[in-house]
Amino acid sequence: MLKPVSLHDLAAYVGGTIEGFDGDANLLMIIGVNTLDNAGSDEISFLTNKRYKNAVDQSDAAAILLAASDPLSLQRCIIRVADPYLAFAKLQRLFNPEKEANGIRHGAAVIHETAMIAADVDVAANAVIGEQTSIGEGSRIGIGCLLGDRVTIGKGCLLHAGAIVADDCVLGDNVYLQSGSVIGSDGFGYAWSGEKHLKIPQAGRVLIEDDVEVGANTCIDRGAIGDTVIERGVKLDNQIQIAHNVRIGAYTVMASQVGISGSSMIGRGCQFGGQTGIAGHIKIGDGVKLAGQTGVLSDLDAGGTYAGSPAMPHRLWLKTSALLLKLPEIWKAQRSK
Amino acid sequence: MLKPVSLHDLAAYVGGTIEGFDGDANLLMIIGVNTLDNAGSDEISFLTNKRYKNAVDQSDAAAILLAASDPLSLQRCIIRVADPYLAFAKLQRLFNPEKEANGIRHGAAVIHETAMIAADVDVAANAVIGEQTSIGEGSRIGIGCLLGDRVTIGKGCLLHAGAIVADDCVLGDNVYLQSGSVIGSDGFGYAWSGEKHLKIPQAGRVLIEDDVEVGANTCIDRGAIGDTVIERGVKLDNQIQIAHNVRIGAYTVMASQVGISGSSMIGRGCQFGGQTGIAGHIKIGDGVKLAGQTGVLSDLDAGGTYAGSPAMPHRLWLKTSALLLKLPEIWKAQRSK
Amino acid sequence: MLKPVSLHDLAAYVGGTIEGFDGDANLLMIIGVNTLDNAGSDEISFLTNKRYKNAVDQSDAAAILLAASDPLSLQRCIIRVADPYLAFAKLQRLFNPEKEANGIRHGAAVIHETAMIAADVDVAANAVIGEQTSIGEGSRIGIGCLLGDRVTIGKGCLLHAGAIVADDCVLGDNVYLQSGSVIGSDGFGYAWSGEKHLKIPQAGRVLIEDDVEVGANTCIDRGAIGDTVIERGVKLDNQIQIAHNVRIGAYTVMASQVGISGSSMIGRGCQFGGQTGIAGHIKIGDGVKLAGQTGVLSDLDAGGTYAGSPAMPHRLWLKTSALLLKLPEIWKAQRSK
Repeated sequence: MLKPVSLHDLAAYVGGTIEGFDGDANLLMIIGVNTLDNAGSDEISFLTNKRYKNAVDQSDAAAILLAASDPLSLQRCIIRVADPYLAFAKLQRLFNPEKEANGIRHGAAVIHETAMIAADVDVAANAVIGEQTSIGEGSRIGIGCLLGDRVTIGKGCLLHAGAIVADDCVLGDNVYLQSGSVIGSDGFGYAWSGEKHLKIPQAGRVLIEDDVEVGANTCIDRGAIGDTVIERGVKLDNQIQIAHNVRIGAYTVMASQVGISGSSMIGRGCQFGGQTGIAGHIKIGDGVKLAGQTGVLSDLDAGGTYAGSPAMPHRLWLKTSALLLKLPEIWKAQRSK
Repeated sequence: MLKPVSLHDLAAYVGGTIEGFDGDANLLMIIGVNTLDNAGSDEISFLTNKRYKNAVDQSDAAAILLAASDPLSLQRCIIRVADPYLAFAKLQRLFNPEKEANGIRHGAAVIHETAMIAADVDVAANAVIGEQTSIGEGSRIGIGCLLGDRVTIGKGCLLHAGAIVADDCVLGDNVYLQSGSVIGSDGFGYAWSGEKHLKIPQAGRVLIEDDVEVGANTCIDRGAIGDTVIERGVKLDNQIQIAHNVRIGAYTVMASQVGISGSSMIGRGCQFGGQTGIAGHIKIGDGVKLAGQTGVLSDLDAGGTYAGSPAMPHRLWLKTSALLLKLPEIWKAQRSK
Repeated sequence: MLKPVSLHDLAAYVGGTIEGFDGDANLLMIIGVNTLDNAGSDEISFLTNKRYKNAVDQSDAAAILLAASDPLSLQRCIIRVADPYLAFAKLQRLFNPEKEANGIRHGAAVIHETAMIAADVDVAANAVIGEQTSIGEGSRIGIGCLLGDRVTIGKGCLLHAGAIVADDCVLGDNVYLQSGSVIGSDGFGYAWSGEKHLKIPQAGRVLIEDDVEVGANTCIDRGAIGDTVIERGVKLDNQIQIAHNVRIGAYTVMASQVGISGSSMIGRGCQFGGQTGIAGHIKIGDGVKLAGQTGVLSDLDAGGTYAGSPAMPHRLWLKTSALLLKLPEIWKAQRSK
């Protein structure tokens, strides 16, 4: 925990304007960020979801981050900012800084003698690091992490407890792996021999670019031939399945339990809701948004918003979903004619 | 395995009445519980699903647990009980008692010197237990379990092989974690900076109350601010995703592959079918039942039963699902008018 | 990597006929298999998906595997084969042979003194092998794998990093477990006592027959009574959930994130698309095909193809899915009459 920061400095840090405060903002010290309900008088809070508007009045927070565009007028201290969610994120980061790597190697870590590990890298208890695996400066390898042979981990990476990276896979800088994530499992490929399924060796790798985060128990399969690629800035939630030879475009975000089948190409800046499924060999354009539980069986152009299984434009889905409830009425009316 | 138990004592243990048996129930010794098909003449069986009614006649079981309310009349030995499934559960527990903790610490476990572990706790090979982590009496920590720093584990807990509990998370008493479950992974929170997704530090914890079971590879994310809470007696099947700041009410049961998005509040005594998805910031009342693959996008009142995606009352879903199959007929009829 | 193989020998190896090549096929040396786009002049490629037909002309591949039945006529070297996908699989296996077990036991593996392990078995760092567990010839146990007590692993098995096999479970020969898979987690069984859910001890095992592959983070629960059985040649993709007492017929293939509820019986040679869900106590016949996201609530006869939730014949699903989009039109037309 950092030292307290004055309201004045906090507002300046997020580029905000203090309103409704008639004391000396240099003297009001803030110790953290909290929800509207739970914030104390030395904490700051935020309104980013109108569902919680009613909680504003009764919040004890020292100040509340509020959008400059929000018409809400309050009889209390607020900080007007362009984007209160971003401001909240910045303050949450300010008060909860990441730990730094200190070059601590636990005695019960198993590090192959040919591994190349930067001096300040932390390797926690029972982590395993294979032959010729390299780890860049400032990275931290959590307890029980399992890194195979010839793995490349960039700088500033954080592997949480029990993350697994298989042979030959490559992580860029500032990649975060949550616990139980599996990078480089075999893709699911077989050919029917006439008698049984013949396994096709999965000879490719997984390449993860910079600033990617991979959720807990999420799996990314290695390519069959060539690589599975996760471009920079992609954020994957928990329990997502990325099949072999998929490419996910930069800054795309997927909620949990999404499944992407083999060789599909996902655009940049997409947003997929939870439990969405994408068939194999599909192309999805940049900026596509998919509602939760969407099922995609064909290519989708850039920029659209889709829902349903099979996927349809979101507006049409809203209509068909509403009319689905009227099917008994439709049926009855038709019978009576 | 316990010693055999007489039919008389078994019936008494489950509060049942023996019917159709003309020997001495004190002399017929039972060694275990088995299915109708596989039970031998020294085993007891049960009828809890009418699908298996036909197997009753041919079963070699010494006796069959049957509901007092079941009109079935049998020419064989049965034990009438109020609830045969509950009676089966009690006998299965009788014949398969849990192992007890014996205070065995494997030499290859890594236990931090500041950890506070009750004397009789078992810690198996390659488990890791972090700084200031505490474990209550009678708990057993399986092979390769990974417990971070300042974790609290209550009494009588059982962590199966490879379960993971991240820093600062709290488990009550008699909590069971199946293999590969992840407690305290980071919630999925980012703010768009204009250039990239800025990670919001997930500063909360996971609080799990007493008598909770968490399935294999299920993930429960820590809160962003404040805690994710799993109330007492909740049972979560495998591969479930519980996002940050969710609260799950006491005694709620969820089948596998359910996903609950961030900040949703689930009532007490709910039952969710497999692969159900709940959007974020949703409130679901007590006792709500959801069929498998339900998709919930709005609040649901207590006590209802729902199905479909998006969710609708189960009765309506039965109608719309049936009428969906008649859409070709509806379409054709309308065209011909 | 093997030594290069001549075009002539490669064609013979896959039973193919070389066309469009006027050099000496014994002199053209091939070093591997690659995609149409990426193959170099010393690599072979294949056309197995008509989506990629356009890439054939510009491919630099030395030769392209093409179906004997394909009408495509090319001005370049091809190898005609009965099944180009199978031929590709065979060549991929030829150029990427499995590693062999060498009897290497890492010093940081924890092997119980009563374990029975064939001489040539590899056991990697931080693997744990329990009491009376046996492992057959030629098997390889990856880093951090966790095998409980009385586990049986057959010959030629490969357990990738972090795979978990719980007490008493049995794997046949040539079984592959991907990372994070869990074999033998407790099934999800409780009886309501009137006050709380009473756990039903899961006393059965998981039996996996020969030639099965289990995907990353896939879970197979042990039986409550009796065993969960995965028959020979079954292939399970990542993040699949197999509940207690399920039986999966030989050579059945399931894509990722499928969930099979308790006691369901799946036939032989079935193919299930991703995210499919099967309710409990269901019987599915041999050779059934299910599209992705199918929801099965009742028994299905052998040989059918189904889609939708709830499942319907695939042809009907194609119609209803198309007509779903016309619901607004249907509604409007009916209102106007």
